[in-house]
Amino acid sequence: MFMHNKRLMYTVRVSDPNPVLANYMLEQFGGPQGELAAAMRYFTQAIAEEDPGRKDMLFDIATEELSHLEIIGSIVCMLNKGLKGKLAEGLRNEGELFMELNKGGDSHTTSLLYGGGPALINSAGVPWTAAYVDSIGEPTADLRSNIAAEARAKIVYERLINCTDDPGVKDALGFLMTREVAHQKSFEKALYSIEPNFPPGKLPGMPDFTDKYYDMSQGEEIEATGPWNQGGQWDVVSERDEQAAVDGGDGGATVKLPAKDMKLLEAVAARTASDPASDPTTGAELGAGPGGGKKKSSRS
Amino acid sequence: MFMHNKRLMYTVRVSDPNPVLANYMLEQFGGPQGELAAAMRYFTQAIAEEDPGRKDMLFDIATEELSHLEIIGSIVCMLNKGLKGKLAEGLRNEGELFMELNKGGDSHTTSLLYGGGPALINSAGVPWTAAYVDSIGEPTADLRSNIAAEARAKIVYERLINCTDDPGVKDALGFLMTREVAHQKSFEKALYSIEPNFPPGKLPGMPDFTDKYYDMSQGEEIEATGPWNQGGQWDVVSERDEQAAVDGGDGGATVKLPAKDMKLLEAVAARTASDPASDPTTGAELGAGPGGGKKKSSRS
Amino acid sequence: MFMHNKRLMYTVRVSDPNPVLANYMLEQFGGPQGELAAAMRYFTQAIAEEDPGRKDMLFDIATEELSHLEIIGSIVCMLNKGLKGKLAEGLRNEGELFMELNKGGDSHTTSLLYGGGPALINSAGVPWTAAYVDSIGEPTADLRSNIAAEARAKIVYERLINCTDDPGVKDALGFLMTREVAHQKSFEKALYSIEPNFPPGKLPGMPDFTDKYYDMSQGEEIEATGPWNQGGQWDVVSERDEQAAVDGGDGGATVKLPAKDMKLLEAVAARTASDPASDPTTGAELGAGPGGGKKKSSRS
Amino acid sequence: MFMHNKRLMYTVRVSDPNPVLANYMLEQFGGPQGELAAAMRYFTQAIAEEDPGRKDMLFDIATEELSHLEIIGSIVCMLNKGLKGKLAEGLRNEGELFMELNKGGDSHTTSLLYGGGPALINSAGVPWTAAYVDSIGEPTADLRSNIAAEARAKIVYERLINCTDDPGVKDALGFLMTREVAHQKSFEKALYSIEPNFPPGKLPGMPDFTDKYYDMSQGEEIEATGPWNQGGQWDVVSERDEQAAVDGGDGGATVKLPAKDMKLLEAVAARTASDPASDPTTGAELGAGPGGGKKKSSRS
Amino acid sequence: MFMHNKRLMYTVRVSDPNPVLANYMLEQFGGPQGELAAAMRYFTQAIAEEDPGRKDMLFDIATEELSHLEIIGSIVCMLNKGLKGKLAEGLRNEGELFMELNKGGDSHTTSLLYGGGPALINSAGVPWTAAYVDSIGEPTADLRSNIAAEARAKIVYERLINCTDDPGVKDALGFLMTREVAHQKSFEKALYSIEPNFPPGKLPGMPDFTDKYYDMSQGEEIEATGPWNQGGQWDVVSERDEQAAVDGGDGGATVKLPAKDMKLLEAVAARTASDPASDPTTGAELGAGPGGGKKKSSRS
Amino acid sequence: MFMHNKRLMYTVRVSDPNPVLANYMLEQFGGPQGELAAAMRYFTQAIAEEDPGRKDMLFDIATEELSHLEIIGSIVCMLNKGLKGKLAEGLRNEGELFMELNKGGDSHTTSLLYGGGPALINSAGVPWTAAYVDSIGEPTADLRSNIAAEARAKIVYERLINCTDDPGVKDALGFLMTREVAHQKSFEKALYSIEPNFPPGKLPGMPDFTDKYYDMSQGEEIEATGPWNQGGQWDVVSERDEQAAVDGGDGGATVKLPAKDMKLLEAVAARTASDPASDPTTGAELGAGPGGGKKKSSRS
Repeated sequence: MFMHNKRLMYTVRVSDPNPVLANYMLEQFGGPQGELAAAMRYFTQAIAEEDPGRKDMLFDIATEELSHLEIIGSIVCMLNKGLKGKLAEGLRNEGELFMELNKGGDSHTTSLLYGGGPALINSAGVPWTAAYVDSIGEPTADLRSNIAAEARAKIVYERLINCTDDPGVKDALGFLMTREVAHQKSFEKALYSIEPNFPPGKLPGMPDFTDKYYDMSQGEEIEATGPWNQGGQWDVVSERDEQAAVDGGDGGATVKLPAKDMKLLEAVAARTASDPASDPTTGAELGAGPGGGKKKSSRS
Repeated sequence: MFMHNKRLMYTVRVSDPNPVLANYMLEQFGGPQGELAAAMRYFTQAIAEEDPGRKDMLFDIATEELSHLEIIGSIVCMLNKGLKGKLAEGLRNEGELFMELNKGGDSHTTSLLYGGGPALINSAGVPWTAAYVDSIGEPTADLRSNIAAEARAKIVYERLINCTDDPGVKDALGFLMTREVAHQKSFEKALYSIEPNFPPGKLPGMPDFTDKYYDMSQGEEIEATGPWNQGGQWDVVSERDEQAAVDGGDGGATVKLPAKDMKLLEAVAARTASDPASDPTTGAELGAGPGGGKKKSSRS
Repeated sequence: MFMHNKRLMYTVRVSDPNPVLANYMLEQFGGPQGELAAAMRYFTQAIAEEDPGRKDMLFDIATEELSHLEIIGSIVCMLNKGLKGKLAEGLRNEGELFMELNKGGDSHTTSLLYGGGPALINSAGVPWTAAYVDSIGEPTADLRSNIAAEARAKIVYERLINCTDDPGVKDALGFLMTREVAHQKSFEKALYSIEPNFPPGKLPGMPDFTDKYYDMSQGEEIEATGPWNQGGQWDVVSERDEQAAVDGGDGGATVKLPAKDMKLLEAVAARTASDPASDPTTGAELGAGPGGGKKKSSRS
Repeated sequence: MFMHNKRLMYTVRVSDPNPVLANYMLEQFGGPQGELAAAMRYFTQAIAEEDPGRKDMLFDIATEELSHLEIIGSIVCMLNKGLKGKLAEGLRNEGELFMELNKGGDSHTTSLLYGGGPALINSAGVPWTAAYVDSIGEPTADLRSNIAAEARAKIVYERLINCTDDPGVKDALGFLMTREVAHQKSFEKALYSIEPNFPPGKLPGMPDFTDKYYDMSQGEEIEATGPWNQGGQWDVVSERDEQAAVDGGDGGATVKLPAKDMKLLEAVAARTASDPASDPTTGAELGAGPGGGKKKSSRS
Repeated sequence: MFMHNKRLMYTVRVSDPNPVLANYMLEQFGGPQGELAAAMRYFTQAIAEEDPGRKDMLFDIATEELSHLEIIGSIVCMLNKGLKGKLAEGLRNEGELFMELNKGGDSHTTSLLYGGGPALINSAGVPWTAAYVDSIGEPTADLRSNIAAEARAKIVYERLINCTDDPGVKDALGFLMTREVAHQKSFEKALYSIEPNFPPGKLPGMPDFTDKYYDMSQGEEIEATGPWNQGGQWDVVSERDEQAAVDGGDGGATVKLPAKDMKLLEAVAARTASDPASDPTTGAELGAGPGGGKKKSSRS
Repeated sequence: MFMHNKRLMYTVRVSDPNPVLANYMLEQFGGPQGELAAAMRYFTQAIAEEDPGRKDMLFDIATEELSHLEIIGSIVCMLNKGLKGKLAEGLRNEGELFMELNKGGDSHTTSLLYGGGPALINSAGVPWTAAYVDSIGEPTADLRSNIAAEARAKIVYERLINCTDDPGVKDALGFLMTREVAHQKSFEKALYSIEPNFPPGKLPGMPDFTDKYYDMSQGEEIEATGPWNQGGQWDVVSERDEQAAVDGGDGGATVKLPAKDMKLLEAVAARTASDPASDPTTGAELGAGPGGGKKKSSRS
């Protein structure tokens, strides 16, 4: 069960209204790396988790992220507060309101559609989608996803901090950014307290293909190397022929079809076969106008 | 520049057509943990990457994932091949085709809408969206995202392997699953060859909040602990009062508004104020019918 | 700030695992009328609300809806619990797992992609989107939206109750359904304690068009009537001619264009003009094959 | 069957082209509160409606909303007309066209992607989605949804009117806004002519929970009250303990699992158990660089 | 302005309720190739069209497609009519309703969420999106899009006809399918009455690249040919080296950066450089457990 | 199998960084008419294609489109390169960065969320969706879709060329635009080498409705005509009465319902019937305040 306390987890002191900055902040409210995505990620994992310790941790952090969502939403509201009254009451000079709305950063949509409230959209106005939540219900995978998500959120906060000089906003964003670091540390501890945790899941890999590195991108004089493809752990495969059909087969795709199905399939194929030897006049040739027909380059 | 070779990277030998299984396979074709998501994740990172070694690695793996996309797409096609002819040519007995389409697993949509071809949807018919791609253009975050993505993909392949007894399908899936393990290893090497890589980004955290663990979820007799919240690294904050307004402020949200804006805002507030002392008759009371009005429980 | 208590708001006692039913339940977890939509609707309104009483109410109900989200998520988990182990550990007989996944209701996607956990999708597998949240930041509109949302949620719970005979599930759903009724009552009270609340907003309507009823759909012998278009409040306009250009103008659309712009526009128009007097041979005629050209009906 | 008359329902006279304003207008063309959403909402209800009077009303209003969609689309076209020729014919000075496109309000997307035509997007460029249509096929819920939708649309029109001084645009918007008021009145009449209409649906609520008000958000010195939680109709529950497990149970979630399933589940749990007593070295510690390991705060 | 007549454009006579078939039909109601997509495609083009003849045609066909939308929606309603009462009134035996909902084809979602009404979703439950509408505001492109859209819709109707033996449904679908053929013919005529119409738009292609055919996919013993890559119109480029950097440059990507920007970029690159000569211990190695570290294949 | 060569297919030489222009370019990276859409369209068709010649062509062009995707992505990167360092390293003067981000064209989202990298979004920030891919698995329909898609992409490139004066960008865009023309020509050849290819599919149309032109939009004094509705091929139906129920039926929709189902349906209808003779007081009347009740126009 959730409960709510009217006090924010961190005090929000905004210096001046700024709807453009408000819209940037939405990135962490309704954006892919934002607090709703974080909260929902951990909350859905928490409900399904069997391990009591991890379940507790996931609920702890999910609840904190909801509290962060409230902080960032409050920042958005404060930054938009100047606009809110103008929109609702109207101004004598409508051109002034038009100019206000057109200051940039998609703040026009937040104003017109959401009245300056904190909407679950990102800074471009794209509605939040659960497609951002990548939990799959396996702890060694999900904890890695959580670690990565915290790292991404940390960076987006860093970028937001870099583009405002409002000390109150900077301060609150600094807190939120710092907590992502702390959460990442917790998730790391949780991942490594499962032993072994690599490879994730239960099935082992096929030994022939676990240590191969396929050099699929070529063309530089000196091939770049690094620990990801050199050293004793790796067999690098650079020959193009050895990259295809690595199982030793013919590289084709086949299925055993019942004769009846095959016959129908052949009927479709026959009905829709291209005549490779034809040189049909086409719609494009008709459309290229007189002389545009069979000549080499149309209208060039 | 990309090039293509007609041979698949791994030979696909499907025993029997099975449109339901085909649809399950779509999870790794157009699903969130599937091969298009992987390929696009690494491809977009590769283009923007400044480090030549990582750039090469990202192009290598992106290209391999495209080749995997082709394999899984070919499996889908083979499994659907029996249906394709029936759909296009029709059957004397339409009821038979109806039954075929209604075998489950959303295969009806793949048949009706995509003619049995490999569509960029997941196993529920949801179109692929770039919202699945979580790259943000910072290598220590993106590499963590890649590590997590490979772990998730490994698990989904494992689940798919667990639900088919077609040896050819199992074999190809085994290859694809194994490669996710190998890719995860490469991305791990790439992450740890950046030093330091934690915390991600450049700005340091606020020291006061880096090591706090907020115990937001309570109510069990014995609080669960683990390395994520115990040991010398952590200060656990369990008191509810100490969890709110952790900056020492009042936990409110404020902004300095120009007087003119404030006045308009007050006008809106006044116009839309609720009268807390009223007990208005409501639409629900009207709608509850005779006697449903002011009494305690409507229609109970 | 949010806090969490490990006990659910309502105890969940599921009789038997049933992944199909689990998936139906997702309608109220990640579906458009579900608990996340409700929680986010009220939470975003609460943050932006200026009226202290309504702000408190919105936080109260938002927090309760989050607690409901946890209940319905827990039901989903319990119903899927039988499948979870099979998916992760595998079965000797893969066909058995295939059959389990193919029991219907899109449970295959929940299993394969989310491992049986409560995912923020609806019963068809469609990810939750903030497009479901229709808050616009004006209280007389938002409260009406909330009233309607509670009514819709009540009905979906009713349908879910109608299709299960599991007494524990029925009981918990009954609680959740009942709370929607209670919330609707609160929102009604809040709406009617704003006076006046109709029409919503500040601008009055144009008197000429406030009481018109345009009878746009015709063709029955006896026109249906009801209080929505009969009685002293309404002027019914049935004549087709009086329905067009109701302002008395010519019903056209015009703009004053600078001459320079007009000239460019004329150039486009001339370049792409259709020749109404032509009877061009078309691609379809080419494609209809010998004799399919200019005759009346192609391939009929 | 639908028919069309070339005259608009309301004459559109735009003073000057203004692509930014055009884009704001899209909010009511392809936005969530716009005319397509309205038309589709009522049209889909109309088809399924059993009551002949309501069916007629729903078709009447759906058809009118389609006519409104045409009006707002025509306004968009007129406002974009200056840009259309420049885009298609090109200008000698490409910088001039670049400046035109970059005037704000996401008009660049409307220009580049849609050639200045009325696209089914909102003012941020987000494509219209049927997720905006919240009809559920039960009249007392759907009519409430319609009432709310009309209220929201009225407000968005009001905001649009407030931000333009073009008299022709203001006039047409005024008509459209007014009709939302009229439609709301019709839907209200239709709702209240169903008796009783509250609670919606057929199943009664559980008497124990119909009149409870759970005070989930606390922390202000004086708790806000209003008719939504005070007066004889309400039992306010403020004690945190009485808010959890309100059924009197233990607040847990349980399911009766077959032994075989339980065993598999235990196997997963064991395989992925966290060791709560461990203090594992983590990837973050590796990544924090020399000295970043086990010390309290990484890189602080 | 639109008007509505209560009679359908084509009479709908359904033999038996069949919710699964109803859901298949949704493909043409709210699916990508369905009637709403068609109507919106032509309607938005019509509003923006400058050519009076094409404008008339587009309104004619848009209006007809809306009338088709009504027909297909009515079929859906009739097929779902049996379920509607059961859902709303409930059954004594809830298991019976559960079985009804679980008959397949995603009919459970249509029932639970939409009460059996015609929802703007496709047969998998995916909400309609304006992303399906590909109009771009240039007539020679849009008319080609319309031709293709009619061809696709014709095929989907054909598939639907192939899977039902209900004569009334077959008959109405036959009408709808036929009209797509007629519309395609009209759009073809409209395209070819613009002269020239190829290439679309105004700018000519670069002569060097208009007639090249890049043979990017290789590996079969005998290269497939056809009129699309053979004959006097084409220069086939098969040499891999001649496919890269076809402009004769170095195939790189460059930009002239101000020195200040370059310096910052170098700072990022330095801070996040990978050490190619390192062989760092990774998280995966930690996680592979004792002995899983530096050895070649983890847990194989 | 795909392979990659480090050289681009066309050399990219950008004169100056320009994040706004970068964002416009995204239209062809992650937009609906962009290169990913093209590549995926042809790639999925190629996998499923039975005709060896067309299969080869589809793989050829799909692979080339992937190479184009790389070119346009590289242009985006170059145009954003100036911003990348500032975002990651921060500036002393945060206001300067704020100004940089707010230059327009939604470049703020690309910067904040994607760090200036090429993201799979369009110029408005909308994530790419497979809903853009309209392949349906029937060659005469799919080839028409491909022809149309190439025409649309050609036009969007033309618009992009028209709005930049950077010669390197113009040059690369010119190449990409030209290739769309060449691809359209190939697809035309492929379509017309199938004989017959019209009507698409196998089922013939109903002769009565193949040549009818329904004049659904009326109201101009002189009806516009053109080859799409005049000439010997067409029967124009203008009488409104002849446009409804064209099958000669009553234009109604019926289904034969089992008595049991009918009874339940009647129960629902009775329970939710509107009383047409009532004049109920409504919520709107309550809300219109004193005197707003039964009078004609509320608050006018």
